[in-house]
Amino acid sequence: MSEYQYPYNDILFSLLSVADIEKLTPYLDEPVDQELLEAILGEAGKLSEQVIAPINASGDSEGSRVENGEVIEAKGFKDAFKAYTEGGWVGLSGDPEYGGQGLPSFIATAVNEGVQSANLAFSLCPLLSHGAIEAISSHASEALKAEYLPKMLSGEWAGTMNLTEPSAGSDLAAIACKAEVDGDAFRVKGQKIFITWGDHQMSDNIIHLVLARLPNAPSGVKGISLFLVPKFLLDDAGNPSQRNDVQVVSVEHKLGIHASPTCVMSFGEQEGALGYLVGEENQGIKAMFTMMNNARQGVGLQGLAIAERAYQQALSYAKDRKQGMKADRSGKAAIIEHPDVLRMLMTMKSQIDAMRSLVYVAAIENDLSHLADGEVKQKAVARTALYTPIVKGWITEQAQEITSLALQVHGGMGFIEETGVAQHARDARILPIYEGTNGIQAIDLIGRKLYSDKGVAMTALLEEISADIKLWSSSGLADQLRKIEAALEQAQKATQTCLQSMEKNSTLGTASAYSYMMLMGYVIGAWLQVKALYSSQRHDGFDQSQKQSWAHSVSFYCDQILPRATSYFQAIESGRDSVESLTESSFIR
Amino acid sequence: MSEYQYPYNDILFSLLSVADIEKLTPYLDEPVDQELLEAILGEAGKLSEQVIAPINASGDSEGSRVENGEVIEAKGFKDAFKAYTEGGWVGLSGDPEYGGQGLPSFIATAVNEGVQSANLAFSLCPLLSHGAIEAISSHASEALKAEYLPKMLSGEWAGTMNLTEPSAGSDLAAIACKAEVDGDAFRVKGQKIFITWGDHQMSDNIIHLVLARLPNAPSGVKGISLFLVPKFLLDDAGNPSQRNDVQVVSVEHKLGIHASPTCVMSFGEQEGALGYLVGEENQGIKAMFTMMNNARQGVGLQGLAIAERAYQQALSYAKDRKQGMKADRSGKAAIIEHPDVLRMLMTMKSQIDAMRSLVYVAAIENDLSHLADGEVKQKAVARTALYTPIVKGWITEQAQEITSLALQVHGGMGFIEETGVAQHARDARILPIYEGTNGIQAIDLIGRKLYSDKGVAMTALLEEISADIKLWSSSGLADQLRKIEAALEQAQKATQTCLQSMEKNSTLGTASAYSYMMLMGYVIGAWLQVKALYSSQRHDGFDQSQKQSWAHSVSFYCDQILPRATSYFQAIESGRDSVESLTESSFIR
Repeated sequence: MSEYQYPYNDILFSLLSVADIEKLTPYLDEPVDQELLEAILGEAGKLSEQVIAPINASGDSEGSRVENGEVIEAKGFKDAFKAYTEGGWVGLSGDPEYGGQGLPSFIATAVNEGVQSANLAFSLCPLLSHGAIEAISSHASEALKAEYLPKMLSGEWAGTMNLTEPSAGSDLAAIACKAEVDGDAFRVKGQKIFITWGDHQMSDNIIHLVLARLPNAPSGVKGISLFLVPKFLLDDAGNPSQRNDVQVVSVEHKLGIHASPTCVMSFGEQEGALGYLVGEENQGIKAMFTMMNNARQGVGLQGLAIAERAYQQALSYAKDRKQGMKADRSGKAAIIEHPDVLRMLMTMKSQIDAMRSLVYVAAIENDLSHLADGEVKQKAVARTALYTPIVKGWITEQAQEITSLALQVHGGMGFIEETGVAQHARDARILPIYEGTNGIQAIDLIGRKLYSDKGVAMTALLEEISADIKLWSSSGLADQLRKIEAALEQAQKATQTCLQSMEKNSTLGTASAYSYMMLMGYVIGAWLQVKALYSSQRHDGFDQSQKQSWAHSVSFYCDQILPRATSYFQAIESGRDSVESLTESSFIR
Repeated sequence: MSEYQYPYNDILFSLLSVADIEKLTPYLDEPVDQELLEAILGEAGKLSEQVIAPINASGDSEGSRVENGEVIEAKGFKDAFKAYTEGGWVGLSGDPEYGGQGLPSFIATAVNEGVQSANLAFSLCPLLSHGAIEAISSHASEALKAEYLPKMLSGEWAGTMNLTEPSAGSDLAAIACKAEVDGDAFRVKGQKIFITWGDHQMSDNIIHLVLARLPNAPSGVKGISLFLVPKFLLDDAGNPSQRNDVQVVSVEHKLGIHASPTCVMSFGEQEGALGYLVGEENQGIKAMFTMMNNARQGVGLQGLAIAERAYQQALSYAKDRKQGMKADRSGKAAIIEHPDVLRMLMTMKSQIDAMRSLVYVAAIENDLSHLADGEVKQKAVARTALYTPIVKGWITEQAQEITSLALQVHGGMGFIEETGVAQHARDARILPIYEGTNGIQAIDLIGRKLYSDKGVAMTALLEEISADIKLWSSSGLADQLRKIEAALEQAQKATQTCLQSMEKNSTLGTASAYSYMMLMGYVIGAWLQVKALYSSQRHDGFDQSQKQSWAHSVSFYCDQILPRATSYFQAIESGRDSVESLTESSFIR
């Protein structure tokens, strides 16, 4: 099994030359300079490579289990989590008032890429904690914040998100968990499923955020409230003491991310779990949506991270494995010398390069949406909203292809679990499902993001791409630009087609949503790939061989990957009847 | 978990109306009439549904293990194998002289579709036996045939194929296993890996066919001979008696097909395993190639079968699972009512329909290549050679997408192993790898099949498609035909481009091989889809609702799936430089 290597240069380049972190400078008290960034990424690389990566395969084999009502996580995870929290990584972008370091969150994104590549199952624990921290920071009372945030930002306490119930998966309106007033607090009762890291022994307390209904609450999503339910209730000194009425029932036996316990949680089997309202009554769904952009972008990042890890392993194998003869018959060839293997490897790399650019461009836009003001903020909010379903949906679809190709490069060895590459494909398979399936991302894009503002935000993006193409026209990239221009034209036409479809019928119009999301992903990917190439030509900080490698990636992307945009475009343009006419009876035999 | 249902109607329709089994009639002593076919398929359906499907999930959980040097297969497999052999299914297309039923092999293909859908891991045991039977039938001496074939055709003895060694996977030239003369027989020594069903307790004997080198054999593939090495040597009465010097060393821990023991086999650790030469010395590779077409088409069939099984499960779930509201807000919707779910289901079904047509068209062509004579035979041989890598490569790639979509339809439940749908995706993942990776299939298509006859066989196929388009022009299918015509033109151009690339440099030319294989798959799929629709309109045997379902499938295929051909076409046309210029240094960071 190959060692994971944090792609320091590529991340740095994406941040500095594609995503343009200087956009944030006017809004930061202390600007993030390159030196600081390099120092943080350097440490993040070490942590990922040396502490978290080594327990990835063993965690997959061992998984987690329930013993005496407690989840026991895989060996080595507690120590790694300790190293992670003691390194101060949890509070990187947290509120300084409660002990956070107040850095813009794109830095946490760059750190998390490493942690997620190293060990996706492990990374979910801090990720979910981060989601809980954010919900509390944005919506909880000052008293709750003061009580819970410092320990959560230090990593001494972890956090979870409790949304899903057996009949309420994609449809949160169906949530049935109940809460009743009990003095200043509430008693929460009900069962939740698919709770990631719902229990473990790595932290002194676990702070569950739980969606539930108060008595007489309106039906549907407008009657859901959010509650903070700690595993251990706090004593007067604010330390964990008495066990709350929360139990883990079981952990799921899953296809991948074995070391991440996916729990069935039971709240309030006895007296009711003591909980505290976060935000207003019946406004729980709003608190959830606050986090949604970040969480969904976070899953897109996971797609990038697992694809990167799988790619590294395939590249390493392709250099080592000898099979067949060299083209000139002078001896045994490493399989990387065979053109079809080069094709597979560059299919992986060129898409990963595009995915990474998009992840960091979206991360900067997200920071801008929080930090800026006025028109800049407004634009950043709209752009972030637009990017989010594409980051989540398109990137996690790419991750399926890339992890599968990595397995394929290994031939028969790829199918053997001990090789380790199959784990990446298994782990990656959850990404198109959780935090809203990719079908839901696509519907979000075509509905809430495109149709609800009549295409204004999307048109602004397409115009920016068009302006960049003009800007780059004398840069010797004519062939790539011609291809992007053709794809851009398709994106523009498809946007109009989709707007008209949605206007006509906003339910049936979603039949083209998936194709539209994929089309936009490939077009944006091409734009950012050429932007990277254009920037690299003007950048002194990277050596010639690396620039050449980027140039190959971009040419390959425009020639071999971007043509997929045409197939999605044609599907959108020609396919309305054949999709919209489908019903259950179309599947009769 | 849903029950498997043998798609009797679809298979019958493919055989009767698309593949045209009457082509074979002039060459059969006893023609296969519809009544016989219906009787056999009916029984095959019962066997698959009632005997073999029920042990699929349990076999996956249990796997197989080595105990005291013997492989113990999963529970229930021995009984199912007994039912399978006692039903006379092994010898369906075997030589009547040795107890076979002498039916054309397309019937075995239709039976195997059911067995493979029901339980891919199980199906590999008879499949490998069939391969061994074929090698012995075609190449062994009369004496060996008389000794081994009757028991193999009855299913009392199983067979295996021993090709791969640690350093000889795709590259058989590197085979290092040795054989030495010992009286009338030989002593075989060496280790083989990835031996499917290399050992088990389901049959009284196991007949291993082993590739090995004789002393002083030429190097490379021209020095490989084929040996028959039984697990138990036969006594004078021809019954298994003394154990031969063959041992199973271990079974692999794999991503999928857990119940199929993938064995490391050791031959000749003591005195050498006693073996008998099959065919001429140093001609072993030829014997292997005889079987290659069949075995590769067999893997394509597995792709169809596992896709069908996964699709059935997704369809059933989509009808049952309630989530979200109906479009008219009148109540809870089953998820099949959501357009994006309909899109996923029809993406599966329409491709499965195309895949099934191709499987049976290729199977009939394969039978014709064996049964016919003169020019008909010659053409069928060339056409079969052309179809084979597309059947194997394209269909097994489709199977990845379809099994993954089936999982996606299940949402979070898809990721839980107990749901059973993840097993299909895991099982399917071996298909692009074994019997020659799909990269090798693509190279076979563009090299041995396209370039070696300068495009003659491919041109004949493309002309047949063109003629059919003309023939169907007044059938009310104008829209579909226009789309196929455009795709056909792309296939014609790409064929010329690939021929020129190969002419220029037959190593670098293979860089486009994968795109070419996929392009041809989609174009042939579209042709056969419309052929099916055209035939169904002229066929009285199926009811209106079923015909309507096929019509939806074909429209969807032409609108939503066929556009992918364009992306592969563009990749072939525009991408030569960006692919051919790649080297290891393109991946530097």
